[in-house]
Amino acid sequence: MTYCLAVKVNDGLVFASDSRTNAGVDYINTYSKMHTFQLQEDRVIVVLSSGNLATSQAVINGLRRDLEEQSEINLGSVDYLFDAAHYVGQLSQRIQQEHSPSLARHSINAEASFILGGQIRNRELQLYLVYPEGNYISASDDTPFVQIGETKYGKPILDRVIRPTTTLEDTARCALVSLDSTMRSNISVGPPIELTICKKDSLRIDQHLSLNYDTPLYRSLQKSWNDGIRRAFSRLPRFEWESPSTK
Amino acid sequence: MTYCLAVKVNDGLVFASDSRTNAGVDYINTYSKMHTFQLQEDRVIVVLSSGNLATSQAVINGLRRDLEEQSEINLGSVDYLFDAAHYVGQLSQRIQQEHSPSLARHSINAEASFILGGQIRNRELQLYLVYPEGNYISASDDTPFVQIGETKYGKPILDRVIRPTTTLEDTARCALVSLDSTMRSNISVGPPIELTICKKDSLRIDQHLSLNYDTPLYRSLQKSWNDGIRRAFSRLPRFEWESPSTK
Repeated sequence: MTYCLAVKVNDGLVFASDSRTNAGVDYINTYSKMHTFQLQEDRVIVVLSSGNLATSQAVINGLRRDLEEQSEINLGSVDYLFDAAHYVGQLSQRIQQEHSPSLARHSINAEASFILGGQIRNRELQLYLVYPEGNYISASDDTPFVQIGETKYGKPILDRVIRPTTTLEDTARCALVSLDSTMRSNISVGPPIELTICKKDSLRIDQHLSLNYDTPLYRSLQKSWNDGIRRAFSRLPRFEWESPSTK
Repeated sequence: MTYCLAVKVNDGLVFASDSRTNAGVDYINTYSKMHTFQLQEDRVIVVLSSGNLATSQAVINGLRRDLEEQSEINLGSVDYLFDAAHYVGQLSQRIQQEHSPSLARHSINAEASFILGGQIRNRELQLYLVYPEGNYISASDDTPFVQIGETKYGKPILDRVIRPTTTLEDTARCALVSLDSTMRSNISVGPPIELTICKKDSLRIDQHLSLNYDTPLYRSLQKSWNDGIRRAFSRLPRFEWESPSTK
C-alpha cells in the first residue's frame, strides 16, 4: 500500500508521501514515491505514484526518457499542466495494457494512480489526480487536496485544517500529521516520509525533507501532536451525569 | 453506508452508531442500527448492524422472534456470549443465502456485519465482531474496540486514545469524536448518533443517548474538539527554516 497527498494553497504546493511498498505482507520494501522534475528554469513538476510498483516505475522511466530524448510530448514541452496530467494518464494506460493480460492470469492488478502538480512560468499553480483509467481531476479552492493510496485514515485532519489561506508550513505540518495517523493505523504505509514544498512563482523545489521515525523533527512532531490530542480530549464537555470532580 | 463501533474497557462497554442508510446517493433514510436486549435481569446484550438493511432487519427480527417464542437457541438462553455471536452469524448466513440469488441478479450485495456485546451474570464482559460470512472475532485488551461499516476515518483517534484503563465516559467521548470525524468525511454516515453505556456487572443499559447536530452536548463537543485540534496544531514544532516569529 501507499499513502501520498498533495495540497494547493494560495502560497504554493505541498507534496508528501510514504515509502513503503509490499507484495503481500511478507515482502516489504522501501521505495521513494516522489519524483521531481525541475526543468529549464521555467517550470517545476512533482509526480507522486501509488499502485502497482512496476507500472509506477515504468511510467516514471517513460517520463524521464521522453524528456531526455526530447520526444514530441514531454514534461518540458507541454504548455499546460493539464496536458502533463493527460500525458501521464496515457502513458500509464499504455503500460497497464501491455502487462495486464499476463498479470491478470495471476490475479495481479496492474493499476497505478498519480498525483501531478507544479507550475509553468506565467501560469497558475496546478494540482491533478490522475486515475488508473487515465483520466484526471484538478484540486480547487473548495477541495484543495488530493490523495492516492490509503486515503481514509489521514483525511479527517485535512478536512479540519486545510483552507486555501493556510500557510505552506502549516500545510506541511498537517500533511505530516495525516501521514503519521495513517502509518499508525495501517502497517503497509511506512517511513521515510518525503515532504516537498514549492512556493508560488519560485518554479523550483524550495524545501525537500526525508523524515524517519528517529528524525528529531518527526519525533517532536509526533510527541507534540499526541500531547495536543490528549489535551484536547481532556477538555471535551462532560456528560450531565458526571460530577465535575469526575475528572 | 454505516459506521458503528464498540469498545470494551475495564469498567464496561460503550456502543455507538450512526443512523443513516442509503440505496445509492439519491435514497437516504434514517434507521437506528442499535438494538438492545435487557433480558431476565441476568444479562444485557447490544447488537449493532451494518450492511444490507433488509438482511440486518431480518436478523434482528429473527432474534426477537426466537426470544418471544422461546426457541431452543435464543439470546436469553445462550450460556456464553460467543454462543450468541455464533447464533447471530448463523442467522445472518441463512437470511443471506435465501435472498442472495435474486439480489445477485441485480448486483446487490446481501451481506451484513454485526457487533454483539454485553454480559451474562457471573461471566466477563464480552464484545464480538460477526463477519458477513458468519464467523466472529473477539475484542481483547490489545485490541479493545471493534468497528463495522465505514471504519477508517474514525480509527486514528481510537488508536491514539483508547486503552483498557480509559474511563467509560472518556471512551464514550472518544466514540463520539470518532463518529464526528467519519460524518465529516463521508456523507453516507449521518446523525442521529446513538450512544449506549453498560457498566461492568450492572447487567443493564446504564446510559443511552441519541444525539443530533443541534443537541447542545453534541454541538459543544464538536466545537471543543475543533478548537482543541486547532490549538494542538498551532503548537506543533516549527521547521528549522521558519523564524520563531513566523507564527
